[in-house]
Amino acid sequence: MATKKVAVIMGSDSDFPTVSKAIVKLKELDIPCEAHVMSAHRTPDAAIAFARGAKAASFGVIIAAAGMAAHLAGILAANTTLPVIGIPMKSSNLGGMEALLATVQMPSGIPVATVAIDGAVNAAILAAQILALSDDALAGKLQQAKKDMAAGVAKKDAAVQEKVKEL
Amino acid sequence: MATKKVAVIMGSDSDFPTVSKAIVKLKELDIPCEAHVMSAHRTPDAAIAFARGAKAASFGVIIAAAGMAAHLAGILAANTTLPVIGIPMKSSNLGGMEALLATVQMPSGIPVATVAIDGAVNAAILAAQILALSDDALAGKLQQAKKDMAAGVAKKDAAVQEKVKEL
Amino acid sequence: MATKKVAVIMGSDSDFPTVSKAIVKLKELDIPCEAHVMSAHRTPDAAIAFARGAKAASFGVIIAAAGMAAHLAGILAANTTLPVIGIPMKSSNLGGMEALLATVQMPSGIPVATVAIDGAVNAAILAAQILALSDDALAGKLQQAKKDMAAGVAKKDAAVQEKVKEL
Amino acid sequence: MATKKVAVIMGSDSDFPTVSKAIVKLKELDIPCEAHVMSAHRTPDAAIAFARGAKAASFGVIIAAAGMAAHLAGILAANTTLPVIGIPMKSSNLGGMEALLATVQMPSGIPVATVAIDGAVNAAILAAQILALSDDALAGKLQQAKKDMAAGVAKKDAAVQEKVKEL
Amino acid sequence: MATKKVAVIMGSDSDFPTVSKAIVKLKELDIPCEAHVMSAHRTPDAAIAFARGAKAASFGVIIAAAGMAAHLAGILAANTTLPVIGIPMKSSNLGGMEALLATVQMPSGIPVATVAIDGAVNAAILAAQILALSDDALAGKLQQAKKDMAAGVAKKDAAVQEKVKEL
Amino acid sequence: MATKKVAVIMGSDSDFPTVSKAIVKLKELDIPCEAHVMSAHRTPDAAIAFARGAKAASFGVIIAAAGMAAHLAGILAANTTLPVIGIPMKSSNLGGMEALLATVQMPSGIPVATVAIDGAVNAAILAAQILALSDDALAGKLQQAKKDMAAGVAKKDAAVQEKVKEL
Amino acid sequence: MATKKVAVIMGSDSDFPTVSKAIVKLKELDIPCEAHVMSAHRTPDAAIAFARGAKAASFGVIIAAAGMAAHLAGILAANTTLPVIGIPMKSSNLGGMEALLATVQMPSGIPVATVAIDGAVNAAILAAQILALSDDALAGKLQQAKKDMAAGVAKKDAAVQEKVKEL
Amino acid sequence: MATKKVAVIMGSDSDFPTVSKAIVKLKELDIPCEAHVMSAHRTPDAAIAFARGAKAASFGVIIAAAGMAAHLAGILAANTTLPVIGIPMKSSNLGGMEALLATVQMPSGIPVATVAIDGAVNAAILAAQILALSDDALAGKLQQAKKDMAAGVAKKDAAVQEKVKEL
Repeated sequence: MATKKVAVIMGSDSDFPTVSKAIVKLKELDIPCEAHVMSAHRTPDAAIAFARGAKAASFGVIIAAAGMAAHLAGILAANTTLPVIGIPMKSSNLGGMEALLATVQMPSGIPVATVAIDGAVNAAILAAQILALSDDALAGKLQQAKKDMAAGVAKKDAAVQEKVKEL
Repeated sequence: MATKKVAVIMGSDSDFPTVSKAIVKLKELDIPCEAHVMSAHRTPDAAIAFARGAKAASFGVIIAAAGMAAHLAGILAANTTLPVIGIPMKSSNLGGMEALLATVQMPSGIPVATVAIDGAVNAAILAAQILALSDDALAGKLQQAKKDMAAGVAKKDAAVQEKVKEL
Repeated sequence: MATKKVAVIMGSDSDFPTVSKAIVKLKELDIPCEAHVMSAHRTPDAAIAFARGAKAASFGVIIAAAGMAAHLAGILAANTTLPVIGIPMKSSNLGGMEALLATVQMPSGIPVATVAIDGAVNAAILAAQILALSDDALAGKLQQAKKDMAAGVAKKDAAVQEKVKEL
Repeated sequence: MATKKVAVIMGSDSDFPTVSKAIVKLKELDIPCEAHVMSAHRTPDAAIAFARGAKAASFGVIIAAAGMAAHLAGILAANTTLPVIGIPMKSSNLGGMEALLATVQMPSGIPVATVAIDGAVNAAILAAQILALSDDALAGKLQQAKKDMAAGVAKKDAAVQEKVKEL
Repeated sequence: MATKKVAVIMGSDSDFPTVSKAIVKLKELDIPCEAHVMSAHRTPDAAIAFARGAKAASFGVIIAAAGMAAHLAGILAANTTLPVIGIPMKSSNLGGMEALLATVQMPSGIPVATVAIDGAVNAAILAAQILALSDDALAGKLQQAKKDMAAGVAKKDAAVQEKVKEL
Repeated sequence: MATKKVAVIMGSDSDFPTVSKAIVKLKELDIPCEAHVMSAHRTPDAAIAFARGAKAASFGVIIAAAGMAAHLAGILAANTTLPVIGIPMKSSNLGGMEALLATVQMPSGIPVATVAIDGAVNAAILAAQILALSDDALAGKLQQAKKDMAAGVAKKDAAVQEKVKEL
Repeated sequence: MATKKVAVIMGSDSDFPTVSKAIVKLKELDIPCEAHVMSAHRTPDAAIAFARGAKAASFGVIIAAAGMAAHLAGILAANTTLPVIGIPMKSSNLGGMEALLATVQMPSGIPVATVAIDGAVNAAILAAQILALSDDALAGKLQQAKKDMAAGVAKKDAAVQEKVKEL
Repeated sequence: MATKKVAVIMGSDSDFPTVSKAIVKLKELDIPCEAHVMSAHRTPDAAIAFARGAKAASFGVIIAAAGMAAHLAGILAANTTLPVIGIPMKSSNLGGMEALLATVQMPSGIPVATVAIDGAVNAAILAAQILALSDDALAGKLQQAKKDMAAGVAKKDAAVQEKVKEL
């Protein structure tokens, strides 16, 4: 079975610098993806149409990034049965707390799988974990990434030993 | 010009005990109103259709009450140019703070006129103030209500004088 | 019927850089407006006198911007039956959370239509939505603005497609 | 010099059960006081007139208790040079946090001496401390109260010793 | 392909009344599941061993519910490449805010798909959405549930019309 | 009766840039004052001795500025019956919220008259208002300052009119 | 070496129901302890004298429980070099958040080892962990308690299996 | 008895600039220490193995610094009976509030001795206070440091006197 695609939807193009990290991570994992700027408030028709057609268009997961009264992930989730991952974007006033609450505190029946504020990389990894359930090669890559991550920490641990000597 | 109607939309019928206070206040002011349970997440089609048809259906203001990740007012506002008043509903976990932020922190272009948590009466009065701009009789009633309110406080002030004597 | 004027009151001239965005938006929509610096605490007489005379002076909506213990919108609303829109201003310490709560959590009887922290553009649009109830030309402009906004997002969506290719 | 009076103003008669503790404490200390229900929003004229006349009416301190977007202490302080003590009242939704911020975060030029949420007893003691600056007998009572308080704690300490034995 | 199992892990048996709603929902959807009490802090070995063996034991998704400094979902996610869904549990002091932040604010590399505070039903639905990617029958049930949910709201809407008449 | 002195105590010399605004304001009002660095935690003996001797040393008010777990105002208030004004200092992590709560939420019996975060000018004005109760000349200055403040706002109002024309 | 004693100081006897859990836990572990009601604000002399004499009186750790602007742990820590453990007590208004911040956010130089809100049992265990550094028997008990705790969870896990069958 | 070692574990090498202050302070006090980068999520095996072996390896205290959903201190505490001190690290979004709550709100049975956000110096001093219980020389140094700190404040007090003259 061919791996399904991941959609990466952002509410504003100003979110791109953060959201692009999710796209880069998906590309690293060879997961086909498509990115769009769509807004729950400014282009509700486009957003809803996308959500409703996503399954038929071979998407497996939708990632949605939005800030402030972040409704994008919720409105997509309301219109698909695909898993929707929400990235609350940091704001200049309240640090992203409002986007976090507006994304995660969904009413019963319409979950949004919320990751950390500005957590674009984790959104991509979570999408990969979901797709890996039916893609053993991808599962293997994720397993390897965990090992690499541990090795990276071990290397940094060694580097810190050197720094400590200079204190 | 006949006074326009006010729509009172609640995200869940569990909101009715609080939201009904808005309806009662509108009736007191002889403002025609219509109430509905509609959800940004559970019945997005109905909510959007309502918002798009509201102006043609002689509504002048839409009041929307929702809790948690309260997207209802926002999604209605995205689909009409009528003023939309948002009532953030109290929740059992975070006291309504999440509904307040999800309602008020709207992105540029789509305002929601937000009132206090559980502020149903004020939502009705705000709707009346808006409609009163082209309805002098209604304006007169609001002016009178302000006076009655002041008189009510004066009466309570007198009552407190008595209570103080007993301390 | 001639369109009513919008008053834009700010609590301090340091609010001007943000508040001026509301004025620019009102001018774009050809809505006559008047701006003032008035303070609930420093010039209470001027603020109250303005609120009381606003209706007779052909104002239809009052926008009030204030920070910290933001009482300006509330004190204006206490002294008029015109709809009052409150803009909570960002502060350097608490991000505007205190101004938001001091503006939105009004007691029953005196609503303030609160928009987002620093939400000056939305305050202007909300004022326009209110005035458009009896001004079809203005309603048309708002409808057009919604379409332009959607078109703008579609354009940005296309631009993001290009950026994604370069990742 | 005769001791000046203390005014105890509450925004709503529903505040009486808490605010009455301030009145009781003032009476205990033989400080003449007067209590009123006045509202920044419902009876702004009465509140402002009271504040402006308070000094001439032999008041020395004004205590103001209000909840939610608590503007009462601020509007009184804007209209007098007497020290104004603010008691933020607990609310059912946000625990009084909004009243605390709306009371304490006053702009430069108009201070409000804020005490704890529902801190009516402390408001009375603070008023007494202020008046005691020119009233040695009152200063003596406050000094004695501090000693009594310490003695009370010592007594409770002894009682706890007993309870501990039973654990 | 047989549907994979869902593991429902709770940090304390006091979480059972809330967490059982997830189990009931999974059973309704005919998804095989297994529930355990395991703690990141009290039984770290058991929790880690479970996470490491989960994939081989035919689990497809792990749901983890924990309160306060809620580390359970994170520690499970650290030890598996399966998607882990976190349910922050309400606490008596801070309303579950601390569990929400401790669950959702995961560092880069180890995502937890966080749902609302006490959001057990949504955790189950999210798990179902994930498994439905390779289970068309399950996808059909979710699609039907969305329709039933909309029909339920329409029914409540009708009921509210009746209640409004009595106001 | 000679005007009593004001003590301005800061918990750290890093508070000086903010706290010095209180000293400048007191000097403007010709109120004798004395400034000290004293810490509830680093020099408890000095702080307590100062508080206990303050009345005899002709101080009338103590202003205390401290950040983080701001105990300074509280510990001074515990050791004097003079009114103590607390200035919560902004912190780099939590914006001063912790200092505000640690200063204002005093237990019954020991009030601290709390002003806004970094509210040094208001602390000085509040001290002046307290001393003015027995100093008519000072009361006159405060009354004049209120008028000057109003005039200043009127001037800024005029300046804003000019700026608006250029928009 | 004889095990040192633990002092358990509470700011108010109303804290006893929660704080007594620490005392019970210490008794379970056969750690000698002494409990007192002492207040940073009501009995500063007693609190400071206790802290200064604690080391000479064979105390090894001081546990301090206080609510609201919880200064007790801080003031004890300022006057001893013994480790001081702070228990922030829940409050009715802000859930204990203010006590948590007032206890944990200590300035550099005077640490307070803070445990969870109302975390009396953990305060006792932490004290035991500290004393166990030079008491092997106590260390053994703590090790055993960890095992018992794990066994307890395993038992609850089994019980949950039964409950799940009934769902 | 030789002084036990202190382990300083950080969750990421990006924490080093802050955490190094703890190491410097420990070196100043001649306390042997060892620093490591280990992560509850990226290297759970290493972290757990370290915690389990720490007592046998002559560590007496473990300091753990982590940010965001800070699980490091908790997972170490779950696997040792040594006292574990947690340093919540400041984050760019929520100021470290999430790390504070994730560190301090530990469940009953597994305490973490939490210090202030970024409170590395205090973590070192707390570790020293713990070790000083069986090391009189170290206790003497801590006592001396308290005196030096007081002397430092007195010196700054004098310096402020000079600065005040220039205002």
